[in-house]
Formats: sequence, C-alpha cells, structure tokens
Amino acid sequence: MISFCQFGAGRIGQIHAGNIALNPNARLKTVVDVNPQAAQALAERYGASVGDPATALADPGVDAVLIASSTETHAALVEAAARAKKPVLCEKPLDLDRGRAEACLAVAAKAGIPLMLGFNRRFDPNFSKLHKQLRDGRIGRLEMLTITSRDPGPPPLDYVKVSGGLFRDMMIHDFDMARWLLGEEPAEVFAVASCLVEPAIGATGDFDTAVVTLKCASGRIATISNSRRAAYGYDQRIEAFGEKGMLQAGNVLETTLAFAGERGIIADKPLAFFLERYALAYRAELENFLDTLESGAPPSPSGEDGLRALILADAATESAKTGKPVRVG
Amino acid sequence: MISFCQFGAGRIGQIHAGNIALNPNARLKTVVDVNPQAAQALAERYGASVGDPATALADPGVDAVLIASSTETHAALVEAAARAKKPVLCEKPLDLDRGRAEACLAVAAKAGIPLMLGFNRRFDPNFSKLHKQLRDGRIGRLEMLTITSRDPGPPPLDYVKVSGGLFRDMMIHDFDMARWLLGEEPAEVFAVASCLVEPAIGATGDFDTAVVTLKCASGRIATISNSRRAAYGYDQRIEAFGEKGMLQAGNVLETTLAFAGERGIIADKPLAFFLERYALAYRAELENFLDTLESGAPPSPSGEDGLRALILADAATESAKTGKPVRVG
Amino acid sequence: MISFCQFGAGRIGQIHAGNIALNPNARLKTVVDVNPQAAQALAERYGASVGDPATALADPGVDAVLIASSTETHAALVEAAARAKKPVLCEKPLDLDRGRAEACLAVAAKAGIPLMLGFNRRFDPNFSKLHKQLRDGRIGRLEMLTITSRDPGPPPLDYVKVSGGLFRDMMIHDFDMARWLLGEEPAEVFAVASCLVEPAIGATGDFDTAVVTLKCASGRIATISNSRRAAYGYDQRIEAFGEKGMLQAGNVLETTLAFAGERGIIADKPLAFFLERYALAYRAELENFLDTLESGAPPSPSGEDGLRALILADAATESAKTGKPVRVG
Amino acid sequence: MISFCQFGAGRIGQIHAGNIALNPNARLKTVVDVNPQAAQALAERYGASVGDPATALADPGVDAVLIASSTETHAALVEAAARAKKPVLCEKPLDLDRGRAEACLAVAAKAGIPLMLGFNRRFDPNFSKLHKQLRDGRIGRLEMLTITSRDPGPPPLDYVKVSGGLFRDMMIHDFDMARWLLGEEPAEVFAVASCLVEPAIGATGDFDTAVVTLKCASGRIATISNSRRAAYGYDQRIEAFGEKGMLQAGNVLETTLAFAGERGIIADKPLAFFLERYALAYRAELENFLDTLESGAPPSPSGEDGLRALILADAATESAKTGKPVRVG
Repeated sequence: MISFCQFGAGRIGQIHAGNIALNPNARLKTVVDVNPQAAQALAERYGASVGDPATALADPGVDAVLIASSTETHAALVEAAARAKKPVLCEKPLDLDRGRAEACLAVAAKAGIPLMLGFNRRFDPNFSKLHKQLRDGRIGRLEMLTITSRDPGPPPLDYVKVSGGLFRDMMIHDFDMARWLLGEEPAEVFAVASCLVEPAIGATGDFDTAVVTLKCASGRIATISNSRRAAYGYDQRIEAFGEKGMLQAGNVLETTLAFAGERGIIADKPLAFFLERYALAYRAELENFLDTLESGAPPSPSGEDGLRALILADAATESAKTGKPVRVG
Repeated sequence: MISFCQFGAGRIGQIHAGNIALNPNARLKTVVDVNPQAAQALAERYGASVGDPATALADPGVDAVLIASSTETHAALVEAAARAKKPVLCEKPLDLDRGRAEACLAVAAKAGIPLMLGFNRRFDPNFSKLHKQLRDGRIGRLEMLTITSRDPGPPPLDYVKVSGGLFRDMMIHDFDMARWLLGEEPAEVFAVASCLVEPAIGATGDFDTAVVTLKCASGRIATISNSRRAAYGYDQRIEAFGEKGMLQAGNVLETTLAFAGERGIIADKPLAFFLERYALAYRAELENFLDTLESGAPPSPSGEDGLRALILADAATESAKTGKPVRVG
Repeated sequence: MISFCQFGAGRIGQIHAGNIALNPNARLKTVVDVNPQAAQALAERYGASVGDPATALADPGVDAVLIASSTETHAALVEAAARAKKPVLCEKPLDLDRGRAEACLAVAAKAGIPLMLGFNRRFDPNFSKLHKQLRDGRIGRLEMLTITSRDPGPPPLDYVKVSGGLFRDMMIHDFDMARWLLGEEPAEVFAVASCLVEPAIGATGDFDTAVVTLKCASGRIATISNSRRAAYGYDQRIEAFGEKGMLQAGNVLETTLAFAGERGIIADKPLAFFLERYALAYRAELENFLDTLESGAPPSPSGEDGLRALILADAATESAKTGKPVRVG
Repeated sequence: MISFCQFGAGRIGQIHAGNIALNPNARLKTVVDVNPQAAQALAERYGASVGDPATALADPGVDAVLIASSTETHAALVEAAARAKKPVLCEKPLDLDRGRAEACLAVAAKAGIPLMLGFNRRFDPNFSKLHKQLRDGRIGRLEMLTITSRDPGPPPLDYVKVSGGLFRDMMIHDFDMARWLLGEEPAEVFAVASCLVEPAIGATGDFDTAVVTLKCASGRIATISNSRRAAYGYDQRIEAFGEKGMLQAGNVLETTLAFAGERGIIADKPLAFFLERYALAYRAELENFLDTLESGAPPSPSGEDGLRALILADAATESAKTGKPVRVG
C-alpha cells in the first residue's frame, strides 16, 4: 500500500485523487493546496488530511508524492520531494524554462528518486496499443507519423498569457508522443503557426493554429497539427505509416449510436475534452507509476522525457517566429 | 459478337441497352416495344433497328434475346424465344403465377435454350464477394443469415395493384439471395407483415412492411426484412453469421465524405435506388450471360431459380394471411 | 448514504460491490454468501462485515438489499427483504417459473417495497441514448426493431442444464429490451431455434441458436437473434427503424485502432463479454436505483418488467417446441 | 457532337478513348501515336482512323484535341493545336520546365483556344463534393488542409529518371488540389523529403517520401504527404478543417464487405490505383471539357493552373534540397 501526499486539489488533482482511491494498492494520505477549502474538500472526500508542504514531505508515512499544482510550482516541489527522498509523479511540464527544468532534473538525479512525468496520453488504451504494435513490427519500419490534436475551444486568455505559448503548453504533449512513437530523436524542427481562432490570443504574441514538421536523422518524418478550437469536440488522432502498412488510432466517440435520416448518417461526436477522453489514461498512468515503485524499474515517461519535449517546444517556438527550420539534438 | 433482340425500351430496358453497348462482345440489333416511340429512341441511340416480335425472333442475325418488357409478357416471350431456339436473359419474374411459370420453364427446357433470370443482385460486387467468401469457408458453416432490403419510397399505387404483392414483387429478390447464400432450400416460411407506411397499400390487401423467417432442414435460419420506405435511401444489406465469424455487406454510400460539426459526424446517405446501387450489377449480369453463352455453361440464376423464389413468395403470402408457418419443398 | 446488504459474492456480486464502493452515496455494510470465504474476501475488500440472511435483513442499519446470488434463491430473498421492508435491487431473473415469480411479486407489492430488476442493458450508454432518441421522436413512429445478441462462447454445460433454457436465460435480456424500446406489449411470439454450436446443449433439450419474431397489435415487428457463440466476441447491437429514419447502436470495440495492410483494414474486436461491455451499465444501474430511493419514484425496470420478459420467454420456448406462433398478452 | 483527335494510345489514352465512346456528345475520329500498332488497335476498337499529327490537326472534321501522349510531347502538341485553333484537353503536366510551360501557354493564349489541363482529381466525386461544401461554407473559413497521397508501389526506375522528380511528377496533383481547395495562392513552401522506400530512387537524386507545408498569406496552412508505396493500396484522402468543423474525404474501398473474426474486423482495401479510383473522375473530366466547349466558359483546371502547380513543385524541389523554406508568388 502506497500512501500519497498530493499537491494540488484543482481539476487535475481531483482526477488523480479519485484514481488513488480506486486503486487497491494506494491511498491518499495528505492533500496540500494553496486554497485551504479546496484541500479540505478533497481530503474529506477520500479520508485524507490537509497538510503543509514541509510537514507532509517530512512525514515518514508518506511513500510517494503526486504533484498536480500549478506549473510554476512543479520544479521546486520536485526538488523538495527529492531532498525528502520521495518518489514523484509530476504533472507536465517540469517547468516552462529549459534551464530551470535541467536544474530540477539534476537535483532529482542526485537524490536518486524515481521521477515520472505525467504525459498521460502514453497510457491512453488506443495510443498505447498503437505504440505496442509499432514496436512489435506490425507496419515494419516507421516512415511517416501524423499527430492531430485539437482542443474543443481556447483556454481563458489569462491562462494563455502564462501558458508558455501553444508549443510549450499544448503541443508539448504531441512532442512527447512523437518522440515516444518515433523511437528516435528529431533532428530538425520546422513550425508554421497562425492566429486564426481568437485574435486576442494573437495579441499576446501567441498562436492558436500550428503545424510542425519533425525530421529525423533516419529520414523519417513526423507532422503535428494543433488547433485551439474544434467545433466537433476534442480531436485526438494518430496515424503511423510504414513499409508494411498503416496504424490509425481514431477519436473515441460518445456512443456508438448512428442515426440514418434524410440528411445523411449521423454519428456521435468525439468525447468532449481531456477529462473524458483520457479518464482511463490517467488511471493507467497511476497504475504504471505504482508498478514501477514496486518493481524498481525506471519510470517512463521520465523527467528527461519532459526536458526533451520542452526542447522541441522551444525549437518550434523559435522556428515559428523566425520562419526557419531549427536544428535540435 | 452476340447480337441482341431486346424486348422493352423502358427504364430497365435502357439500362440493359447501355450495357450491351458498353460490352465489346455484344451489340443491340433489334428493339421491340409496344410503344413505338420508345423503341425508336432506344434503337437510334445504339444504332439498332425497331422490330416486331415475330420477325425479330425469326431473324437469323439475332443471337440472343433480352426480355425487359412488362411482367405479364415475360412467360410468352420466353416461350416464343425458346421456340426460335434463342438464348434468353429475362428480367424477373418469369410470371407471378406458379403454374404459368412452370409451364414456361417446361417449354424452355424442351427447347434446350439457355435461360438466365435477371436476379441482378447476385452480381452486385459486395454481395458476390460475400457469396464467394461464404463458399470459400471464411466463416465456416453458415448458421444465420439476415437480409435487410428497404426501398426509398413506395411505388405508385397502380403498380402495387398489379405487382403480385410485396412478397412476389419486392421480397422475391431477397428470397433468391437467401437461397443462393444458404446453399440449401428453406423448409419452412413464416411471415409477419403489416401496413405501416401507406394505408392505400393496405387497402389493396397488400403489405408494406414485412419480416420473414426461413428455416432449413439443417437448422440454419434466415431472416428477411422489407419496408417500402426508408427516409435515408435505398437500404440493401446482408449479414451472414457462422462458426468462424460474420460477413457483412453494407450499403454503398454516395461518397466517402464526412462532415464533423457541432451536431455530430455526418456521412453521406446510401445510393438513392436500384438504378444507382445496382448499376455495376446489371453490367456484370450481362457479362456473365455472355460468358455462359460462350462457355456453354448453364446460366445462373436459372429459370428454375426464378420458380423457387416464387414458391417462397407464395408461401410467405400465405403465411402472412393465415398467421401460420408454411412448409415448402 | 445508503447502506447495502448484498447477497452473493461471486462474479456479478463483485461488480455490484465495486460499484457501491465507487458511489459516494452508498456503502457496502453486509455481505452474505453460501461460500463463507467468498463472503469474507469481498467484505474485507470494501470494509463490510459478513452476515447471515436473517440478521442482515433485520439490521436497522441496512437500508437496501442487493440480490446477486444464484437464480433459485432470488424469489425467496426478495420476499424476505419485502417482509423486512427493505428496498431491493435484484439480479435477473426473479425466478424461472412464472407462478413463483408472480407469487414473489405479490409479496413485494403487499409490502410496498421498491423493487428494481437488474436488466442492466437498459443502462448501457449506447442503448439508453437510442431509447431516449426513440422517445424524443427522432425516427418518428417505430416500425421495425432488430436486436442482435450473441455471446462469445457457450456457458458450461452444468449451467445450461439449470439455466431454464436459451429463452429464459439469455434472450430474456432481449425480451426486456424489446418491450422497453417498442413501448408496447408484443401480442404474438414466433420462435425458430436450432442447436448448431454445441451438440451437448441440444442433448439437454435446449437450443444455442434462435430467432424470435414479435408482432405487436399496432403492426410493428421486432426480431431478436441469439447465438451462444461468436468468434469475434460479444455481439450486442440494436437497430430501430421508423418513418423518419433508423437508429443503430453498434458494438463497442476494444480500441479505435485500425491497421491497414496487404490483407485489408483491420479494426479491433468488440469488447470481450458482458463484464467489459456493460461495466458502465452496471454502474449506471446502481446510480439509478439510488436515485429512485431518494426521489421515491418507482424503480424501472420493475419486478413486473421481469415477469413480462419471462412470459415472452415462456411463449418463445413453447413456439420453438411446437413450431407454431404463440399469442401472449 | 464533338469529334476528337487523340494523341497517345497508351494506358491513359485508352481511358480517354473509352470515355469519349461512352459520351453521347463525343466521338473519336483520329488516333495518333508513335507506336502504329497501338494507334491502330485503339482506332479499330472505337471506329476511328489512324492519323499523323499534321494531317489530323489540319482536318476540319476534328473539333477538339486530346493530348495523352508522353510528357515531353505535351507542350509542342498544345502549340500545334493552338495554331490549328483547336480546343485542347491536355494530360498533366504541360511540361516539366517552367520556361517551356510559360512559352506554351503564351502560344495558346495568343491563339485564344480553350485549354484544359487534366488534373483529373478535381472531378473525383468525393473531392468535388468536398470542394463544393467548402465553397458553400459548411466549415466556415478554412484553416488547415491535409492531403494524403500514397501510391501502391513505386514506378519503374526508367520512369523515375525522366519523371522530373517526386514533386513534379506525383505531388503536382496535390499542389493543384491544395490550390483549388485553399482558394488562395500559397506564399511559402517548405519540403522535407527522404528516400525510405527504394534506395535506387535515391540513387537518381530523387525522393520517395515527402511532406510539404504550404503557408498562405491569410495564415491558413496546408500539409501534403506523399509516399511512393503503400502496402494497403492507393491512399487518397483529404481533410479540411475550419471554424465550423471538418470535412474528410476518405478512400474508396473495393467493396463494403467486412469480416468479423478472431483477429478483428477486417474491411476491404482501398481501390488499387488511379485507374480504378479515378475512373469516374476521368469520365467527369471529359464531360466537363465538353460542357465548357458548348457553353464557352473557360476550362478549369486551366493551363495557368498547370503552371501554378509546377511553380509549387519547383519550389518544393528547391526546399527539399536546400532545407530552407522557399517563397513563391
């Protein structure tokens, strides 16, 4: 039984706390949040107590730390947990600044703690099966990868301003997915980005529509498409093309219902947003983290994976602004 | 090169004449129709001449006869062609009366002419591939067969009155399909029929909605569903279930276009009606008839197949009226 | 907070106990099972205690009873709970014998307890949305209903012998679904049944393959197809056809993954069996039961619904054996 | 009735000649080919005569010219037809050299002849419906366009060497499609290209795998993916994303048949190659050309469209070689 101290009692924190409660090998011991009422409500619902960071991390009854607080707190909390020798499951990103993320990883490495980064989409049943079949050779050598990722609607403008921009905030999930599926580091990044959805986003210097091309040393090519808005819901698809064929993971629809009428055959829309689409992924992510704690295997995605995705996001940001391809590596 | 005399220059006749023109091994030599203008127009379009039945059938330059005139003329024309020793491709049905159909078949058999009955759906690429895979054992032993067949809208009431009723006019295609796929004669027919679409059809004593269950001696079961109206177009599907799996042949949609929007994902409707859906089937049917003439193989579907389907239609009509299952065979 | 006493700690009992634990408004207080180890294991997992029937039903701390024990115990347990004035959620069927079921319902009615019968499929998100759209008039008047229900493989022969037969054990779910969707009692039942899957099932006098046609007074027609085996997994589909179009609820596939290769485009299979396919349905069923307890609304499906489905199953059994349609109602 | 002189009796020439024969408003009068036997065979099949270029173009009985000969002859034949004042339907490309193509267009413009370029995919029923719905505003403003185009297998190496390279030979179709759908000229081209399929192609300096990103002044972005090989057949798909939703035109499968078995649900592959997939498009293209001749409307796609696509192909070739985006316009 692993007892968790969880930082963050907001939307994502509630997901994680619920999954801890569902898992017979885990329990929520302490909840920490800057908002005491939110911490209290979450703690009560799952029989945990409210704590402060120092006490909670020092508590010998806490076996692991789950960080689901706001982005700017991630790196410091990972470091604090590392110094307390507690394994960490940290929501993405480690930090929006590459130097800060590197410093944080150095502290975690020195402490030798297991550190897993919350790229939850790797645990989506559709995508993880695609990954497995890719590794099992179903399409032979991978040649082209296409990732489509569109949110149902743009986030609040206040969030956009502190988000680090489209590439670091949204496409970073797709950069991790691309790296994971490619099995090879991209060597070059070319980004084309526009503001087509919401002019106010453009006014902040950010984009809401972007296509990024990644080229690897082997010649294989990945394309990522992002939009901050999709009228039909959350659009999350992957297509992997190789010498023996193609694997496609499509959207998960609300139901299998279809209506055939005078205007055509109408199927349901995709699940509305990430809480619905990735509900099973969040659960599997936690199970995987618990498994690595038990087996001693290194967590994956790791903190290093978080850094690598950030480096690609930085390169894409630069490419979108300069109009030139950017080498990474 | 096979030269055809064609009886009938109406809607179906125009389809057949076009397919004869398309086929490099066939040509249309003579057109016969009770409407001289229709005959003239069709003959002109394809470089044929207009003829009368007696002269056309006696013409040594006519190699084969295609009968696409109205139903009540079929049996007499088949007999006339048989006496003239000309091979015949005859639109379904031979006749609406079993005794008349049997008499006609006797004449054709005595003359020894090849006689093919126009159950065009056997030549639909989707259904013929299903049939082939069934025979090739893809689902092992067939256990259950489901045929769905719904017209986009009811025919004119004047047609309904002389049609022989839903079972002999519409479901007869499905009876032929069931026999062809089952590979075994049904032993028992049970029909449930209603008038739900158009009360005027019910007023003639006919039905517009029906489900028929066929049971074979082997225990395998077939179900046929018919409706005279479908808001979404022409609905033509088959599902074959067996020990190793299931084969489904679905509707052919107008295009592959799909629109994803706020109200769902909207695909195109099925092709509108039989002229569109079975365009390739009519063409393949003619090719098959020409192949049998060349090879000397017996045509299939044969006149006997036409009779067998009629016997099932008669049994279904009786069952629907008495409420009791009817044994056939 | 509703405290449950649950009878039965087997496969279905574990599903229900897990859903009680997941629900913030319910808890498992007592577990009763003829197998003390099974009862103990389940009780421990969810912090409940093990009890005996009499004490558990007399316990004022028990607010409701969930019956998930073996079929032959259902009626007596419902009656005992009724006498103890406890609301009941009882797995289907009430009993395999119509007279016994009627007697049981009389006891429950006299006691005035809420009694919900576990026809879980009504709570499947796909089917419940189909039902809602039907009632909302999306296809206008319903005319034809087709229910396909095939298990991945036959149950153990020992179970078959005490199951009451295909119609009372398996198709009873589909009879309930048909009644619920038709919105009208069937007036006539015609069953065709065979033993094609497993000869040993036939040797017990039972069937493993069946098609039932239900005809209503309004003329609308329903067809139910059952097989005890499907090579591709659990096949659970519904098609409702009406004046304005068609609603189809399809199978839920394991993932959305598709592989396109030399042999075609290969999608995943349907979810393996009812525990997977109806996981959400079991959860929603419990929520619905709790809602009715809170609101005081009559539970649906009710005990009467259980009886009505059994009457149809009896009629189908008779029809399959006599070869004749059977009137009900 | 339009009488055609056709140059070229090869694979594409046979398609065009067949469509001329099918069209009631057209006939094939003269066939010209460097291979006299091929010319003779095609002429015989459709009742035409064999001619030489000068005589055929001078023939007052020839109303229009169809150029389906090899690429290097196109420009000179267009010019010769222009001088003879005959309308031209010319297979793509006009020429592989931009200067030569421009010179040819100047001659045609001076002569004032209608000149249609054979970008047949604009007439594919799926793509033309997508185009229509885009123009009709179904997805509002277009923001992202994704074109996937993969051949079943690479062409012979001898062809590759004279083809002008992947971008001018294969992707030129997609450049035309992108321009047509975007409704706006791309301002910038970025190409990433590899040789992953067939090393011998790479040895000629060409590529077999490529992704091109087009950016327009409005900010809208198009992506084109090409591969010279797809294990599952001819892959031809378009996805258009806009403010109100998404339009997708998918592959046309061989049949609608699906097999559900132990290994999943297996659908048919896409139609094998362009002769099958675009059979209807070639026919509609000819009909459209005939319509423009009758109405006097300017043909579309025009010779200028051919030049524009070539300019994009040149830019992509340069980008792939330099690794830098290339501005066009």
